[in-house]
Amino acid sequence: MKKKVRHRHSLEDYHAGILLGDKVLLAQAITLAESELESDRNLIENLIEKIVTHKKDSIRIGITGSPGVGKSTFIETFGRHLTTQNKKVAVLAIDPSSYKTKGSILGDKTRMEELAKDPLAFIRPSATRNRLGGVAAGTSESIILCEAAGFEVIIIETVGVGQSETAVRNLVDFFLLLMLAGSGDELQGIKKGIMEMADGIVITKADGENLKKATQAQADFTHALHLFQLPESGWNPKVLTSSALEKTGIEETHKIISDYIRFTQANGFFEKNRHQQDIACFHDYFNSSLLHLLAQRSTIEKSKKKLEREIMAGEITPWLASRQLSNLVLDALKKM
Amino acid sequence: MKKKVRHRHSLEDYHAGILLGDKVLLAQAITLAESELESDRNLIENLIEKIVTHKKDSIRIGITGSPGVGKSTFIETFGRHLTTQNKKVAVLAIDPSSYKTKGSILGDKTRMEELAKDPLAFIRPSATRNRLGGVAAGTSESIILCEAAGFEVIIIETVGVGQSETAVRNLVDFFLLLMLAGSGDELQGIKKGIMEMADGIVITKADGENLKKATQAQADFTHALHLFQLPESGWNPKVLTSSALEKTGIEETHKIISDYIRFTQANGFFEKNRHQQDIACFHDYFNSSLLHLLAQRSTIEKSKKKLEREIMAGEITPWLASRQLSNLVLDALKKM
Repeated sequence: MKKKVRHRHSLEDYHAGILLGDKVLLAQAITLAESELESDRNLIENLIEKIVTHKKDSIRIGITGSPGVGKSTFIETFGRHLTTQNKKVAVLAIDPSSYKTKGSILGDKTRMEELAKDPLAFIRPSATRNRLGGVAAGTSESIILCEAAGFEVIIIETVGVGQSETAVRNLVDFFLLLMLAGSGDELQGIKKGIMEMADGIVITKADGENLKKATQAQADFTHALHLFQLPESGWNPKVLTSSALEKTGIEETHKIISDYIRFTQANGFFEKNRHQQDIACFHDYFNSSLLHLLAQRSTIEKSKKKLEREIMAGEITPWLASRQLSNLVLDALKKM
Repeated sequence: MKKKVRHRHSLEDYHAGILLGDKVLLAQAITLAESELESDRNLIENLIEKIVTHKKDSIRIGITGSPGVGKSTFIETFGRHLTTQNKKVAVLAIDPSSYKTKGSILGDKTRMEELAKDPLAFIRPSATRNRLGGVAAGTSESIILCEAAGFEVIIIETVGVGQSETAVRNLVDFFLLLMLAGSGDELQGIKKGIMEMADGIVITKADGENLKKATQAQADFTHALHLFQLPESGWNPKVLTSSALEKTGIEETHKIISDYIRFTQANGFFEKNRHQQDIACFHDYFNSSLLHLLAQRSTIEKSKKKLEREIMAGEITPWLASRQLSNLVLDALKKM
């Protein structure tokens, strides 16, 4: 197999192409946003600065759930529901577990087949690197790029229960948790923390033999959510059931999201939340770029290598080594 | 309810108590390791420096799996198997999803009840904060503390599939993945990345009606693992079935872990891996403490606040703001 050479266009080409909704250029720009190469970082930062001046409205939805809950099927059905209403939908699938080989056992091509073929849809799986700023870093730029390309609904899909949920929650307007009745999620898996982040919960696979259990779970979760404090948005999270098989609960999910958007736009939370997210993004970016830039300074690099050798020889603990290196940087900053 | 006032002992008290295996002082020292207070950080760093001089041997095992796979039950049964052989076992349960409220719906007290009462066992649930260095930061210190207190097997339990697995993998000698046959994990949930990290896989709940499916899954996973490259350790990951109900597969799991330890100690990987983990820990610590210390400098703090106001007013993007602040720090470092 021939190794694909990654092609770089000019800033102007990306800019013009994305504003015209060119999916190929959009995909290539997202690859830049995920890159850690210095030249790519510069290009994408300049592109973002140019592109945000054409800001377009969109709704950003985060969707999460344990493995096996039926996320892809739900997103495909939900996405198709939106495209038949002539809405342009982008799906950014974040996969924190595939960092090592950047691939799942079943390739992503077999997932959301119908939606992938839909001219109004754009699907992009992303393996998150282990970098500082993590999920949030590359994805916040990808969202801006998708919006500039005219996508009106941006879905951020994330796998499992873990730290990526927190990061995704900080990128979206509405956070949807998918759950399966009787999967053990209710009992031990899904923690209060994740449920508290949700603006809506959908119990999936609510059909056939599962229907009764799903309806029961709906009542249980509705009850459980009432025990939580009302979130800052002032919105009472809703619980629905859905069957991708029987196409139930899809329109209802859309309606709840629309209700939420109207509600939070009216009370000012929508805009406030986005500004707060921008500030979190600023912090992530600053931390990430600062560490990156510091690592390139030769004085730090040399001391780091020396300390690493001492650790390998068992002469110093990681904690003491860290303290010594921090002090070195702080001494230099004393002149500030 | 009266708010508990957190009690601080002297460095010498912690040191002496932990070396004597005092579980109360051990638990309090772990709380220090999880604290972000400057005074706690200093105390714990000094304690660790003092305590590592009495280094004791231990085996560090990471155990992970999706919600509902039966992690707690497996760990309880496995832990009891070890304590009946007179081994002292510590379980550090990492819970990345409960950062917000620091609690699960069912309290952790209802989990691993028998093991919790065992005088040879120590169980400690930890909500990981969202801090830089994440899971690894507080936990690597907790491991050192448990070892100093005489615990010979340290189990790090982590929930779900996500970034915490990668962090935990970097803290342990042996990484065990629990899977449930027919749960969808095989099809879509568990990604290649997590499987590639595993030194062993245990198919849980292999009893009754599930037994046939579990045996089939064992064959499937064994086959799948053969498609991966041999890991750096040179160890071929093994796949087992286990039933906590019928107490099968527990002794076999223990045997495989012992085989692995012998194998990697003989080929030198065991020690090399621990040194590499120390270096990763050094990097995490350095990044984390540096950012913490930088944030306290008034010049940076002032510029940051100004940029935040501009972001809230929509006058600057998070990316540009980050670049400006990074440049400020870099200018100060030019004199290095």
